[in-house]
Amino acid sequence: MAKNELQILLTPGPLTTSQTTREAMLRDWGSRDKAFIEMTGRVRNSLVALAGAADSHICVPVQGSGTFTVEATFGTLVPRDGAGKLLVLVNGAYGKRMARICDYMGRAYVTFATPEDTPPSAAQVANILAADPAITHVAAVHCETTSGILNPIAEIASVAANAGCALIIDAISSFGALALEAADIPFAALVGSANKCLEGVPGMGFAIIENAALKAAEGNAPSLSLDLFDQWCYLEETGQWRFTPPTHVVAALNQALEEHAAEGGVAGRGARYGGNCRVLVDGLRGMGFETYLPDDLQAPIIVAVRRPRDSNFDFLAFYDSLTERGVVIYPGSVTEEETFRVGCIGRVDEDDMKRALGAMADVLDRMGVKDRSPNP
Amino acid sequence: MAKNELQILLTPGPLTTSQTTREAMLRDWGSRDKAFIEMTGRVRNSLVALAGAADSHICVPVQGSGTFTVEATFGTLVPRDGAGKLLVLVNGAYGKRMARICDYMGRAYVTFATPEDTPPSAAQVANILAADPAITHVAAVHCETTSGILNPIAEIASVAANAGCALIIDAISSFGALALEAADIPFAALVGSANKCLEGVPGMGFAIIENAALKAAEGNAPSLSLDLFDQWCYLEETGQWRFTPPTHVVAALNQALEEHAAEGGVAGRGARYGGNCRVLVDGLRGMGFETYLPDDLQAPIIVAVRRPRDSNFDFLAFYDSLTERGVVIYPGSVTEEETFRVGCIGRVDEDDMKRALGAMADVLDRMGVKDRSPNP
Repeated sequence: MAKNELQILLTPGPLTTSQTTREAMLRDWGSRDKAFIEMTGRVRNSLVALAGAADSHICVPVQGSGTFTVEATFGTLVPRDGAGKLLVLVNGAYGKRMARICDYMGRAYVTFATPEDTPPSAAQVANILAADPAITHVAAVHCETTSGILNPIAEIASVAANAGCALIIDAISSFGALALEAADIPFAALVGSANKCLEGVPGMGFAIIENAALKAAEGNAPSLSLDLFDQWCYLEETGQWRFTPPTHVVAALNQALEEHAAEGGVAGRGARYGGNCRVLVDGLRGMGFETYLPDDLQAPIIVAVRRPRDSNFDFLAFYDSLTERGVVIYPGSVTEEETFRVGCIGRVDEDDMKRALGAMADVLDRMGVKDRSPNP
Repeated sequence: MAKNELQILLTPGPLTTSQTTREAMLRDWGSRDKAFIEMTGRVRNSLVALAGAADSHICVPVQGSGTFTVEATFGTLVPRDGAGKLLVLVNGAYGKRMARICDYMGRAYVTFATPEDTPPSAAQVANILAADPAITHVAAVHCETTSGILNPIAEIASVAANAGCALIIDAISSFGALALEAADIPFAALVGSANKCLEGVPGMGFAIIENAALKAAEGNAPSLSLDLFDQWCYLEETGQWRFTPPTHVVAALNQALEEHAAEGGVAGRGARYGGNCRVLVDGLRGMGFETYLPDDLQAPIIVAVRRPRDSNFDFLAFYDSLTERGVVIYPGSVTEEETFRVGCIGRVDEDDMKRALGAMADVLDRMGVKDRSPNP
């Protein structure tokens, strides 16, 4: 077996995909040909159905990474010239990035930041919205992979709806594994990516946008490439993407969505990831590690682990030795506290997590890291 | 043999790629792992070398379609707030799109439009630049695939340089097959795509930007996702793309670039396409068709053909019947005059062009289109 077939990616993405999903990229597609138009329609319909939003929302695909789609959604939905104002909830790198997008675009915004291990409370958000009636939109990250924290999106959605604000959810790392039903969680837009819990390959994202919000968005976008209103109009008229789509990436997502359905949809996918996360967290604690988050805040997406204080622990050597053993974790710390992160999403199962734990135990033994606790 | 292996795409892109290029997508890559960092560096170095610009320019890759990279290059290089002004040369859809990008971004610009079968002359461009000293940048399309016309990029470059203006070349459809050497053609930036003459798959573009122009571009971009200065800074610091790259698309381009070198680089690739174009044009004329362009303006990229006046000719049926025979041409007309377009780029050779011509002859016979001339 070739090395690459043994390798698993335990990162926040790109992640491990199935062989059949990758094999869907073995043919070329004319992007304006009927067969590809049909595939685009199928993918869009599947995605909007996964949010229980076929009657209320429209799926608009976007070339590029998830950040491109977040930016496109902000630019398309939030009016220019001070007619809109965002409240951006921040407890990690992706919340900060949303604020940076607003800076670039010159959209009015305020942030509400909580520590990386602390979700915003519904009462806090309600107070901010009550105190600042200029706020028209609330932007929140569902699972913030900086720490792996699950933010209380249903409560935030309810508070936003009560205040008459439109909610934009960055669900890039959660969509397809954690339930986000439009009937339960009122949202103006939800942003997802082909390459996370849907287990496609990277290269495209999508926004699932409430019908009326999209139809009212003409002329907002400051970018042609990232204008979701214009992209949608062209899709409506022709069934085609405006500009060359990543055809092979779309074909891989089409296959990945079939495999997602075969696994039992969001519930089935979420159950597997939940099992992966449990095995990983239990195994890490069994080895003496401390997770960064308590269990009730931990999403089954990625686990941040406090680095051991043992002076024999060298993170770069740990990372490299794991990679040599076919286990690729995230190569750095992004939390303010020193951690390392291990993903539990992608085409991996509990046996893979056990294999990863075995590799970690082996590497730590060779390094002579006896004490895995972070405490001095 | 499966249908998809028989199918050839004779469009302006996406186009036919090699089996080995597609097979490069059969593994997953950690985008922040050493192996992928090395691959990104290799691809960037190869691309800048193809422009003979290793010492003078920097290659910045961009997620998305070619249009994303054109927009990113405009936004990054042309200052905000009236400190820059573009002259956009237009003789087709891609020139018009560049103007539309300026409208979205609010950058000052003027256009100079010539008919779709007429390149701008150096003297005309020189006069415009002399009359409007506010112009800081000239934007031109090398091969405008609307008609397939080759614009006189060396002459335009020379005139722009004499006027002290920075030239931005949309070389998306030509790069890799037609020579664009920095030593001969002074340019501030050249925009290319993975999926045209380089024969990678769609999903990323790249800009090759003159060192000083890029280094002076901090703070210009109105978009985080499309800020090439920021993308470059992160690449310099870490070797990584800022946001998740289309890893499989990059791997395919890496393989495609090896195959490009093995074919003899730009000269070898251009020679094959030149042969394809000759066989195609000769064959079409032999069947009684008229090409839209005279030979001296025809780039060996895509050929626009005047539609026959014969009342038995039905373009949609012609397109569908060709597709059934495994030959996918562009499904519509984009020139102002009614034409159809047949590409001669991608992993296709003269035998493929003969097969396409045979399929066309067969379909026309069955349709009873005896007169292929456009003249009344």
